[in-house]
Amino acid sequence: MITPTETATSTAIPTRWVGPMRLSGAVTGEVEVPLATFESPLWPSVGRGASISREVWDGVIVTIVGERMTRSTLFVASSATVADAAAREIVARLPELQDLTAASSRHARLLEAHTEIVGNLLFVRFAFETGDAAGHNMVTKAADTIMRRILAWGLRLDYGSISGNFCSDKKVSAVNGILGRGRSAVAEMLIPNEIVVRRLRTTAHAIAELAVRKNLVGSTIAGSLRSANAHYANMLLAIYLATGQDAANIVEGSQGITYAEARDEGLYFSCTIPNLIVGTVGSGKHHPDIERALERMGCREEREPGGNARRLAALAAATVLCGELSLLAAQTNPGELMATHLRLERSAPRRA
Amino acid sequence: MITPTETATSTAIPTRWVGPMRLSGAVTGEVEVPLATFESPLWPSVGRGASISREVWDGVIVTIVGERMTRSTLFVASSATVADAAAREIVARLPELQDLTAASSRHARLLEAHTEIVGNLLFVRFAFETGDAAGHNMVTKAADTIMRRILAWGLRLDYGSISGNFCSDKKVSAVNGILGRGRSAVAEMLIPNEIVVRRLRTTAHAIAELAVRKNLVGSTIAGSLRSANAHYANMLLAIYLATGQDAANIVEGSQGITYAEARDEGLYFSCTIPNLIVGTVGSGKHHPDIERALERMGCREEREPGGNARRLAALAAATVLCGELSLLAAQTNPGELMATHLRLERSAPRRA
Amino acid sequence: MITPTETATSTAIPTRWVGPMRLSGAVTGEVEVPLATFESPLWPSVGRGASISREVWDGVIVTIVGERMTRSTLFVASSATVADAAAREIVARLPELQDLTAASSRHARLLEAHTEIVGNLLFVRFAFETGDAAGHNMVTKAADTIMRRILAWGLRLDYGSISGNFCSDKKVSAVNGILGRGRSAVAEMLIPNEIVVRRLRTTAHAIAELAVRKNLVGSTIAGSLRSANAHYANMLLAIYLATGQDAANIVEGSQGITYAEARDEGLYFSCTIPNLIVGTVGSGKHHPDIERALERMGCREEREPGGNARRLAALAAATVLCGELSLLAAQTNPGELMATHLRLERSAPRRA
Amino acid sequence: MITPTETATSTAIPTRWVGPMRLSGAVTGEVEVPLATFESPLWPSVGRGASISREVWDGVIVTIVGERMTRSTLFVASSATVADAAAREIVARLPELQDLTAASSRHARLLEAHTEIVGNLLFVRFAFETGDAAGHNMVTKAADTIMRRILAWGLRLDYGSISGNFCSDKKVSAVNGILGRGRSAVAEMLIPNEIVVRRLRTTAHAIAELAVRKNLVGSTIAGSLRSANAHYANMLLAIYLATGQDAANIVEGSQGITYAEARDEGLYFSCTIPNLIVGTVGSGKHHPDIERALERMGCREEREPGGNARRLAALAAATVLCGELSLLAAQTNPGELMATHLRLERSAPRRA
Repeated sequence: MITPTETATSTAIPTRWVGPMRLSGAVTGEVEVPLATFESPLWPSVGRGASISREVWDGVIVTIVGERMTRSTLFVASSATVADAAAREIVARLPELQDLTAASSRHARLLEAHTEIVGNLLFVRFAFETGDAAGHNMVTKAADTIMRRILAWGLRLDYGSISGNFCSDKKVSAVNGILGRGRSAVAEMLIPNEIVVRRLRTTAHAIAELAVRKNLVGSTIAGSLRSANAHYANMLLAIYLATGQDAANIVEGSQGITYAEARDEGLYFSCTIPNLIVGTVGSGKHHPDIERALERMGCREEREPGGNARRLAALAAATVLCGELSLLAAQTNPGELMATHLRLERSAPRRA
Repeated sequence: MITPTETATSTAIPTRWVGPMRLSGAVTGEVEVPLATFESPLWPSVGRGASISREVWDGVIVTIVGERMTRSTLFVASSATVADAAAREIVARLPELQDLTAASSRHARLLEAHTEIVGNLLFVRFAFETGDAAGHNMVTKAADTIMRRILAWGLRLDYGSISGNFCSDKKVSAVNGILGRGRSAVAEMLIPNEIVVRRLRTTAHAIAELAVRKNLVGSTIAGSLRSANAHYANMLLAIYLATGQDAANIVEGSQGITYAEARDEGLYFSCTIPNLIVGTVGSGKHHPDIERALERMGCREEREPGGNARRLAALAAATVLCGELSLLAAQTNPGELMATHLRLERSAPRRA
Repeated sequence: MITPTETATSTAIPTRWVGPMRLSGAVTGEVEVPLATFESPLWPSVGRGASISREVWDGVIVTIVGERMTRSTLFVASSATVADAAAREIVARLPELQDLTAASSRHARLLEAHTEIVGNLLFVRFAFETGDAAGHNMVTKAADTIMRRILAWGLRLDYGSISGNFCSDKKVSAVNGILGRGRSAVAEMLIPNEIVVRRLRTTAHAIAELAVRKNLVGSTIAGSLRSANAHYANMLLAIYLATGQDAANIVEGSQGITYAEARDEGLYFSCTIPNLIVGTVGSGKHHPDIERALERMGCREEREPGGNARRLAALAAATVLCGELSLLAAQTNPGELMATHLRLERSAPRRA
Repeated sequence: MITPTETATSTAIPTRWVGPMRLSGAVTGEVEVPLATFESPLWPSVGRGASISREVWDGVIVTIVGERMTRSTLFVASSATVADAAAREIVARLPELQDLTAASSRHARLLEAHTEIVGNLLFVRFAFETGDAAGHNMVTKAADTIMRRILAWGLRLDYGSISGNFCSDKKVSAVNGILGRGRSAVAEMLIPNEIVVRRLRTTAHAIAELAVRKNLVGSTIAGSLRSANAHYANMLLAIYLATGQDAANIVEGSQGITYAEARDEGLYFSCTIPNLIVGTVGSGKHHPDIERALERMGCREEREPGGNARRLAALAAATVLCGELSLLAAQTNPGELMATHLRLERSAPRRA
């Protein structure tokens, strides 16, 4: 079906290193990030945000507020009564499942089991620590092992599915934000008013107001879900591709919230991104381009388990902030977005 | 900030041509598709679905049920009373805006204006035909021109934003599916029971049941939104990247529904994908890799305006079906998904 | 199964007339409203808002921005191809269905048919004008007639269901807000700063800020949907019960948005309520209590068709604003909500 | 503003006792339930389901899978860094807050604190056991006390709001279903095929299929959220009113899932209702009508704390099942719903 000689090839995604961004919190110092994208206006857009971060004392401050990877198994019982008894047993015997996980995986550590019953269906969402890997395969393997064990307990459960969509991978959901999946990060920056005016040609008040009207109210009427931002998906896709991530995870990654305040001292601008599914080892990370990129970003150092992945998550969050700030600022001014696009298109080489 | 010599580069995404798929409906014949992804198991997974399509008389049947591209502008009034009067005026004067659009753009054709008021805020979502382009920039430019005109009408409106998130681009929403954005496609296949058993090692009943339990019930408890599928995002990302699309549009593209029925004659399996944002011209389409890919897919032929993009949308929808069918079938069998992953990992070259 | 002598009875819901509210826009003048509720603190809470409206020149201004009632039928085809052809035929023959509706109903007028296809399933959402009735039964009857006609057209469709949940009645949805269901109203009031401070013991800024943090951001993380308010459901339930409405429609009625701005001249405060399912005739409206209530509210006058129901919708919207304003103001002050509850409980007669 | 003599009154909601339903699981035996509603067809509809339960050995089996009541407080910090440190401290000092709650409330028991950060905003959702009360006021009071204590800890937090909409009370949300709020119940019944045909004039297959097409697929395209049912809100409203509940809680109560299977032995039919906010003591329960109703239902017996409320939740869940089954069965047959409505209207006294 697949004839390697004819079909194996690669697609070259234009990539530029942007920044450096100045960072504090989870990452300190000045760091550049690679952005792989066909949408070339993204580079100067993120670049403007990065440049502003270098004018601010602390730059972009990133806080990592949680991390875990999940897989939800589906069991089928004859009735809710049976499902409920089984759910209580599974939660009660969590230590046994934790030992099982530890014994069968070098990196996975089982954190919790969250159960939900619908009729006779029992969904069990397992959460794991996965070290520096994003952990897709690691948690599937661990869930497979756990499921076999549970089915052997004689709880009158049948196999339903190794994944019951309550995980939830690469699909919009509320559960990921509420119970956690991936690294959860907040990036924030306090930008003096003078810089807002000079660099962004707008005011703190105008940006804070637009963040409410467009991102919060506009998203609400669009029927969005746990999502209130202008374009997180753009930045996430670009940094995910350039660092070898499973970039389809921008689906849940894009469900984040921009929150801003016009304070006396300037613009408080924040991006809360609860579902950053990133890793610095594992699938996709052994391509030479990717290894070089991760090394240049300082994400292949000797650190405690998970330390490199947390660094990458923090850099992704800060990158999102830089691009989000720049676009929102542009949209406060009539015509600016279009003028910028036209200028960039004209100056760009035809095939860049 | 950006030093071209150091930073301009590209990221190579491994790409394989998969198929051919047998197709009827919007596209007829046997066609291969390129999939760019770091997740190599995707190739044999889609390949299995494609192979099955060649065993079925009609193959995958694709129906395109709608197409349009949108941009929502945000106007600010002093009150809802003023906003409501303005909304009625804008809808009443749609012909003037249609003429304006026709006069200022070669390809964009204004279809409708949908208004929504929140307090004193007026959101107007404009829908356009955009020919063979996905149309992101085209509709922004058209909306910019329209907005200027409306602001000149003296309706006591102020500029709010060129985009009010009611569009909604690269963000989860309900509005896109309900009012339309991008090409809307249904891919379906009726697979004789014998083929289901032989090729997928399962039954029509088992797949239909899993589609309900996992995709519909599981997504419901996950708090998903207008989305009930296993992994549309994977297939969409791969074909979007390989054809130069703005791949962040997988966010809304992944909001689709798998619906299956166990019929006497076999498995009826369908993927409904309302928001395929794809184009065969425009941003990202002039890279040599991309041009070759589009040509090989037959998406650079002489056709009526929009014909090439519709073909690409149909191919994307069929690709989604092939991958979705394959994964769901695998998940009906305990352990199959994990065993397949392990086998593929072992046989794969370390750096593929 | 039901023994009338033993079982026919009634439940007495404590009811008070609150106000008057001062109104302009869709309703002008000063009007009282009845609130039936077991939650007695609701009366002084709405009362405070009403009292403030009487201190403001225009009082609460209500704008009705749309009205319609809907029912979605479900047809089943063999494939999406057949469903799509049928959908196009149904839309094309809308005039025939409009004539049919006019001939079979005194009050219903068919406005539009909105189709959506999932696999081989065809959902058709019909929208009607229903005069002064809320219209639940009227649209079911009309849809029943229409469905019979369509099934007689030979489009190769089978009956699926008279209601396909795409209506959507008494269930949370995004479609109702986007395509409309019920009366859609915006209530707004501009309250001078002096009144905000004196009557609400807070500031315009504090209320606007809380509306963002609690109603917009808080609802977003709660995974809410097209809903950003503190407690619309309370006011709607009380006025629905006291006026004989089908009060289960507070489910969609409660999906509204509070939007506020701190302006130089004071607090701009608005409640946008897109799905007010109310009527002044029809089921439940012939009880003596209800007739008296509707008469006292001026909702049984000689008006153009729909005029009384629009008036009732406007009064409901203004009532929502009064209660929402009062609660949000209370929540800006630490301890105020609890103190008020305790004070009311102590002063209330034990069984009130 | 309120002149008691003129304004204090009551609204009489027609009420009938329906059933008895046969029950097992959380409640055993045959029990009647009161339904207060203006929609008189609801009585025979629920009655049909109840009657069927008496033909089935176990009747409706109800399982209570969880119970808790929540309130989310909102704290404001200067930055996410400060908010994150405070969140960790609050979770670490949960025992102190549990002691505080126990010392200040006779019935409330603090179960957990769930934190979420958005920029500099810290939402803390506290969950409590509340005995036989629904617990609205109890948790507000407890949260008020807890908040005061936390603000005294010197964590550099300011008061934001006693409720941050992450609770979430009387508003659509995903958080309530995922983290729990109210009693969570599953009602299920296995109905022999003979009874399905004779009593419901349909088949197990037809009902299971409609539950998928209408409740799951239809709700998905409507943009519903954690909700897939035909009309839970109707039954909940009626039983809530007749038992003195805060009936605006049908908003979240209606977010439940109907799941059915056509098994060899008959129709497996289940209603999963995660958010039943009910109590047998507290606000609204001292009206004579209400006391009599609760006594007749056996919900005022001497039981362990919470036992009466759990019984009421179980009865509400079973009532939902009876009405849901009846309506879905009717909708499988073309014209049946309309014919039933017309027949009931004709036979009903004009003012019933």
